[in-house]
Amino acid sequence: MGSTKKTKIKIKSKKKETKKEKFSELRQDLISGDWVVIANSRGKRPDDFKTETKVSEKSSVESCLFCDPVASGQEKDVLIYNTSDDDWSLRVFPNKYPAFARPTGKIQHKEEGPYFWMDGLGYHEVVVTKDHFERIGTMENLKVAEIFDAFQTRYLDLMNKKSVRYIEIFHNQGKSAGASIFHPHSQLVAIPVVSPYIKLELEGAERYYKANKKCVFCNIIEWEQEKKERIIFENDRFIALCPFASRRAFEVWVLPKKHMPYFERMETEDKIQVGEALNEAVRKINVVLNDPDYNFYLHTSPCDGKDYSHYHWHIEILPKTSIWAGFELSTGIEISAIEPEKAASALKKV
Amino acid sequence: MGSTKKTKIKIKSKKKETKKEKFSELRQDLISGDWVVIANSRGKRPDDFKTETKVSEKSSVESCLFCDPVASGQEKDVLIYNTSDDDWSLRVFPNKYPAFARPTGKIQHKEEGPYFWMDGLGYHEVVVTKDHFERIGTMENLKVAEIFDAFQTRYLDLMNKKSVRYIEIFHNQGKSAGASIFHPHSQLVAIPVVSPYIKLELEGAERYYKANKKCVFCNIIEWEQEKKERIIFENDRFIALCPFASRRAFEVWVLPKKHMPYFERMETEDKIQVGEALNEAVRKINVVLNDPDYNFYLHTSPCDGKDYSHYHWHIEILPKTSIWAGFELSTGIEISAIEPEKAASALKKV
Repeated sequence: MGSTKKTKIKIKSKKKETKKEKFSELRQDLISGDWVVIANSRGKRPDDFKTETKVSEKSSVESCLFCDPVASGQEKDVLIYNTSDDDWSLRVFPNKYPAFARPTGKIQHKEEGPYFWMDGLGYHEVVVTKDHFERIGTMENLKVAEIFDAFQTRYLDLMNKKSVRYIEIFHNQGKSAGASIFHPHSQLVAIPVVSPYIKLELEGAERYYKANKKCVFCNIIEWEQEKKERIIFENDRFIALCPFASRRAFEVWVLPKKHMPYFERMETEDKIQVGEALNEAVRKINVVLNDPDYNFYLHTSPCDGKDYSHYHWHIEILPKTSIWAGFELSTGIEISAIEPEKAASALKKV
Repeated sequence: MGSTKKTKIKIKSKKKETKKEKFSELRQDLISGDWVVIANSRGKRPDDFKTETKVSEKSSVESCLFCDPVASGQEKDVLIYNTSDDDWSLRVFPNKYPAFARPTGKIQHKEEGPYFWMDGLGYHEVVVTKDHFERIGTMENLKVAEIFDAFQTRYLDLMNKKSVRYIEIFHNQGKSAGASIFHPHSQLVAIPVVSPYIKLELEGAERYYKANKKCVFCNIIEWEQEKKERIIFENDRFIALCPFASRRAFEVWVLPKKHMPYFERMETEDKIQVGEALNEAVRKINVVLNDPDYNFYLHTSPCDGKDYSHYHWHIEILPKTSIWAGFELSTGIEISAIEPEKAASALKKV
């Protein structure tokens, strides 16, 4: 896999573990049962949240923390794709300010009064491509495929770590989408719980399967291929479409056309084709919306050893076309100000 | 109720209904079962979402749409609190650009292929206080009580409308929290479904009651009063605290101390005291965080005729202290960068 001839994969695993210290906590909401992370480790004081404290976006190559991660004091690589002995195209290293710290022992579950919580332990890694300005949507398809190869490689390593139940892979593009560093990068976060949204989808997919003897995602793909109204791109193995119940204007999903519960079981050809599909989808969004900020993330089966054969992994892209305000925050019902059919029609034309 | 001597309540109900036209749709996500609103009525074209299109915040009194709603062509009041024959302190009128249009007949449920949706019909109203600059947190307590009186009055009217199942009351403060108009205002949206987040809380509260023979919220209040670690304000009837599983730094909940499932059953004294508690909570947040943007909203029992005696209505205040990025959007697990105990300690001191 790779866009350059000499791509070589060296995996270096970090041996030295830092000693256990007060870190993040995963706290359970007593009413909803959902989890939150209290990242108290970052040692923030109340004053740090004052509105006047603005973090400037470091967009220049000179001050970039990711152009030369070694020189800028990032953690040691856990994966590097070299293009030559002294050059690289992609590298993965632990996040210097992780939301979840690496475990050094068993995760402690705690209880006090009515409340429950546990240590916020896990793995938080950053996937960085070399070029400071070359983003998904502007790079060669094979370079995006290389990113997926890195996702898979790291996933396969992290999924076998003790107490990892789910691995979230995501990408924040732009300040308003939560990116604190300009240089393009994705993140993997391996956590000790199955997240609420994944649970909801797993339950929904199972319910649908029981009622219809069919994967809900496969059924959606089949219907969309017949209607041709919401599809914006297709190759042999992947399809990109605006979902019927779009939560944001210009939301796009990228799905494998063949039923596939587990992201990590992708073959080389899958990675090449998902690379093309994601690249194309983002390129189209960039043209129609003028390079908006966005988030994308993978939804895949948990790695907790259970059977999720009714699930179907996919990518969701959420351009930052609106702010979720009081109504959305309170109800969980999002308002999209354009029909996905209209959005798809504009994206298709690009 | 009121901070001025001559407060007088006149309710004018809107008689003329506009004829039914293509409006919003409530579409159901086939996997999660959640609803989204496709507000296609606003007639937006793809170009309207381009990043360069910036809506300017109209913060001057001269150009304000809410300082003189009649002159600026807002819809007719459904409620007005007059302070004299020609002056007012608060008024409520239908939102000119509603997310849900007023129904003129039965809500249609539709189905096509695997998908379900229904007309996005309901009621969307704006609650405006007179002063352009005077916000919650800076006004007299009794003025906030008057806002709650308006919430209740409109709630009691809307809850009896056909096909209304839930009424969401919320307030967006500041641009980054989604407020498109500077002039302080709250909103009521009456919708034909019970929202996913409320459902989750109702189920959780019932589950908790069955297991513990106790209201989960009452139990939390009792525990917090014993611990005194997360309470930031208390009067006879209401309590304001930073929740144990805080989703955002400096999140605050305001709850009635007595078990109370239905917001709309508040007595006059409740409105006075919740006004004080909310006003105090926001004032404290404003001091510690330097007037941040924020959202607050009410969570109360649905008005669909069922019994929700295990639920406990309350207000949640979410200061805009962070952006929910790829991790939060994907997992539903929020990261708060400060412990609620530390946040409470800072807020308490104000």
